[in-house]
Formats: sequence, C-alpha cells, structure tokens
Amino acid sequence: MSRAITLVESTLASDQLLAVEVLAGCQAHVKESFRIGITGVPGVGKSTFIDAFGSHLTGLGHKVVVLAIDPSSEISHGSILGDKTRMERLSRDPRAYVRPSPARGSLGGVTRATREAILLCEAAGFDLIIVETVGVGQSEIAVHSMVDFFLLLMLAGAGDELQGIKKGIMEMADGIAINKADGDNLQKAKQARAEYESALHLFPMAANGWLPPVKICSAVLGDGIPELTEMVFNFRDTQSANGFLGNQRRQQAKTWMHETIGHVLLNRFYKDAEIQKVLIDKELQVESGKIPPTVAATQLIELYLQPIS
Amino acid sequence: MSRAITLVESTLASDQLLAVEVLAGCQAHVKESFRIGITGVPGVGKSTFIDAFGSHLTGLGHKVVVLAIDPSSEISHGSILGDKTRMERLSRDPRAYVRPSPARGSLGGVTRATREAILLCEAAGFDLIIVETVGVGQSEIAVHSMVDFFLLLMLAGAGDELQGIKKGIMEMADGIAINKADGDNLQKAKQARAEYESALHLFPMAANGWLPPVKICSAVLGDGIPELTEMVFNFRDTQSANGFLGNQRRQQAKTWMHETIGHVLLNRFYKDAEIQKVLIDKELQVESGKIPPTVAATQLIELYLQPIS
Repeated sequence: MSRAITLVESTLASDQLLAVEVLAGCQAHVKESFRIGITGVPGVGKSTFIDAFGSHLTGLGHKVVVLAIDPSSEISHGSILGDKTRMERLSRDPRAYVRPSPARGSLGGVTRATREAILLCEAAGFDLIIVETVGVGQSEIAVHSMVDFFLLLMLAGAGDELQGIKKGIMEMADGIAINKADGDNLQKAKQARAEYESALHLFPMAANGWLPPVKICSAVLGDGIPELTEMVFNFRDTQSANGFLGNQRRQQAKTWMHETIGHVLLNRFYKDAEIQKVLIDKELQVESGKIPPTVAATQLIELYLQPIS
Repeated sequence: MSRAITLVESTLASDQLLAVEVLAGCQAHVKESFRIGITGVPGVGKSTFIDAFGSHLTGLGHKVVVLAIDPSSEISHGSILGDKTRMERLSRDPRAYVRPSPARGSLGGVTRATREAILLCEAAGFDLIIVETVGVGQSEIAVHSMVDFFLLLMLAGAGDELQGIKKGIMEMADGIAINKADGDNLQKAKQARAEYESALHLFPMAANGWLPPVKICSAVLGDGIPELTEMVFNFRDTQSANGFLGNQRRQQAKTWMHETIGHVLLNRFYKDAEIQKVLIDKELQVESGKIPPTVAATQLIELYLQPIS
C-alpha cells in the first residue's frame, strides 16, 4: 500500500498513468468507511490527540489510517506533520498505519495524492481514515472537501490561540474539541466550552440539522476521548440514516472530478511558453489598476488560443 | 452609463468585445471610491435599509449606485432584487442610480457584469457603490470578492431567521446591523447585539485587525443609520491608512483576472461537443462510485485533447 501511495504522490506522467489504473482497479474493493478531518493550529496538541484518538479507535476494533495535508512542507521541504515519531502508540499499532506527509508539492498536488491515498487505504481494508492538517492556509478547505466529519481542535483561553486559524474554518466544523483540559486548565476549558456552545447556537445551522457539539478532552491523560468518539459515531449514524452522508460523498466525488478537470486545464494554460513570457507583467498592470482584470484575461486568452504561427 | 452596463451584461460575443474596449477606456477616469456589499435573507428589510442608508449617503454629498447580484432570477426569470420601486426615495434621488438586477444569466455571468458595472459607475463619478445580494447560494462569496466592506443585515430573535443564511457568511462580515430595532422589538435587538458581540469575540480576528462591530437600526424610522454610516467610514479610513484596503483591492483585481481565465477555459471545455456527449454519464459513474473522480477527469481530458480525427 505504501508503494501504491508513493505512486499516486508521484508527479511523473508515467507514474500518474499507472496510478490511474491502480485506482480504477481498487474501486471495486472499497468497503464501508468513515473519513475524519482534524485541524488545529500548532501547539494545540494535534499529534498527541490523534495518537490517543486513533489508539482508542483501534481498541474498538477499527483499522485506522492517518494521512496528512501539510502545505507548510512546500516551503520547508521538510514536514511538520506525518512524522511517525510524533504518534508513538499509533505507529507501533498493528491495526494502524501512519503515513508521513509528502515532503513537497503544491497544495493541489498534495490534495490529489491524499484523496487517492484515501481510496487506496479503504481498498486495503482500513475503515477509519483520519486526515490531519494545520490550521493555516487553504488546506482545511481541501481536507473539508474530502471527509465525512470535520473536527476542529482548540485550546481554552481563546483569543490569541485563534489568530492562527483562518476565518471561515470555525463554521466548517462538525464538532469542536477543546484539548488540554486538565489540571489548572480544566476550569478554563469548561468555561470555553460553554462560550463556544452559546456562540455556535447563533450561527447558521447546517442543512443536515446537525449542531456542532463542543467537547473537552485531555489527549495526554486520555480524558474525554471515549465521549468524543461517541459523538463522532453519533454523527456518522444519524447522517447515514438520513441520507446526508451518502449525498455528501456523491457531491464530493462529482466536485472533485470537475476540480481535477479545471486544475489540468489551468495547468496547461499557465505552463504555456507564450503566457509565461507576459503573465507577470499583466498581473502588475492589473494590480496597479492600469487595465481592468477582464481586459487582461481576454488578452491572455487570445494569446493562448492564437499562437504566433 | 445604462447602455454601457447593458453592454457588459450582454452575452453576445460582439458586445463582449466592445465592452472590453469601453472598460479599457474607462480605467483612466476612475476616482476614489468605496464599495459596500450588503446581504441578508428576504424579510430582513434590505430594500428599506438600502433606501434609508443610500439617502443618508447622498445627503452627505456622495454619489451612490445600487447594483444587485440575484441568482434567484436565474430560476424565476424575474428578479426579486433591483426593482426600482422598492427604493422609493433613492430611485428619485438625482445623486443616486439604482440599477435593476439583470433578469437572467448564470451566477458567473452576473458576477462578471456586476464587477464591470462597478468600474463603469466609478468612471461616471459615483463614489459609493452598494452591491446587494440575497443571503442564499454562492452570491455572497461573489459579492464579498468585489467590495471593500461587507455588511450582514440580521433580525433580532436569531435562530429561525438564520436558517436562510449560508454557513461561512457570518465570518465574512466586516459589520453586522440588526434591523427592525423599533417598538416592541427594540429590547430584543439590543439583546441580540450583545449576544453577537460576545460571539464575534470568540471567532478568529481578520488579518487587518478589524473586529466586526454589531449595530442596531430601524431603516423604517431612520434610527441608527448615521451611526452605522460612521462605522463604515471608520473602517474605510483606518483600513486606507494602514494599507489593507489598497492591498485588498489589488488582490481582488488579480484574483478576478485569474478567475476569468479559468472561467473561459472551463467554458470552452464544457461546451465541447465530444464532452457534452459523455459528461452526464461520467458524472453518474463517479457519483455511484464506479470510477474514482481523478480517473473520470483524466478520461474526459484525454477525449477533449485528442478529438477523433
């Protein structure tokens, strides 16, 4: 399975063709699965949380995979996620597979590879897929679009800690867990839970009628992990029964097909030699207000479609 | 100006070419302007609010334009927005121009036309542009991407009224106004203001350091309109001074250029005769899980690039 995932992560055209064949072959073997996205800013204790949560899940008899989308690795060429040593228990657990984040690639490429890794892992018999990401950039939107349940990890004593989370992420969450609710921090965590609960009541309800619960937990002590798990499974059961889960997956699959088409078409455009010659100049003209965006776009498209012969 | 806007709204290729020329010519004449997006579900009193707000602005010496993005008109082929009779004072005001919403067209087309109408109106000397939309669908995201300030109109006694607003809209707002704060409703509106203020404190702060204020007003009586106006101008002044406003406009312009390119490329793809023959079938295969999205996308792209010769 590792090799298959490496294949879908590859940017070589020959590997990508092979990956498409592997994927097409896998589709028949996919069993019932549940996909959980987890986000939270660095410092929230995400690795420890996933280690505790994932171990609890394998203890219940599930086969668990942890994948990561980490656009920060694009810049550092290293990865702050997906380091196996971060999840000591889970990485030694025979019922779990922790996949390190690919060390490089654009967010689009990493997203594609992760989506396909999900399919491969499901074909290999894993029934609980955890996709983690850091609470910065566009990666949460990518993760949100490929999972059934989206969990936001937070700390008590909001305000400062929230600065790292992008606007809009809060409203995407299907549930919030306030971590590090232990010792001196327990009271603060309980207060934060009450505040978030009342705030979430003011916000628009999702079409599926689910009001995101706010839970407290201590990943280090393991406190609250069973209750949180129960909440996630409650979501799975009610949303399976009312049909929203199946519908969401169908929509996600269709959207992903169209996004892939758009990605490929745009990629061809931006890699065009004529476009590359003039693009930065056009961008500057648009930013400085010299030409309206639509005019610049029209000029570029004309250049692309009618190359100098 | 009306005729120029009709031109940018046209879907005829010849009109679009002409519109591009008109726009390119206009760019030199654009003066300092401020663009305000306003959203809120039907029943919130949006027309009455814009009538009162806009009249207050012309009273301060501004030249005001009201444009509308109304995707609902796509379905009904009529328009629930942009009806001039909704804004009695403003439509008779010589310093104001109320543009009815185009009666048809895709959201993408209407968005493009509205963006260009903004540029035309600014070239014609209007310095305050109001873009209104209903709190449903994707139209708020479109409006948010073309304005300097995004105002969310709400009613007291949240909960039920919020159902119509899409998730994520709340976190896009630069300010919230609770309308119909009059008579028996005044106390409820004040309470709602306190609740939203404390809720917004829990949510991530924008990069520009602006915490969205919550105001109460009664558009019918005119109460609170001057205070709201002051708040909007306070935003304009502080965000101009710290450079965020200019930066946001440059980003919006660049993004719009790239979005237009993507729109044109996708449009050509989906209008391709070979693609149209097989697309619905591929979508169904993807939705039912028969083939993975990436595989379907790859097959479609191959079909598009290598037509049967």
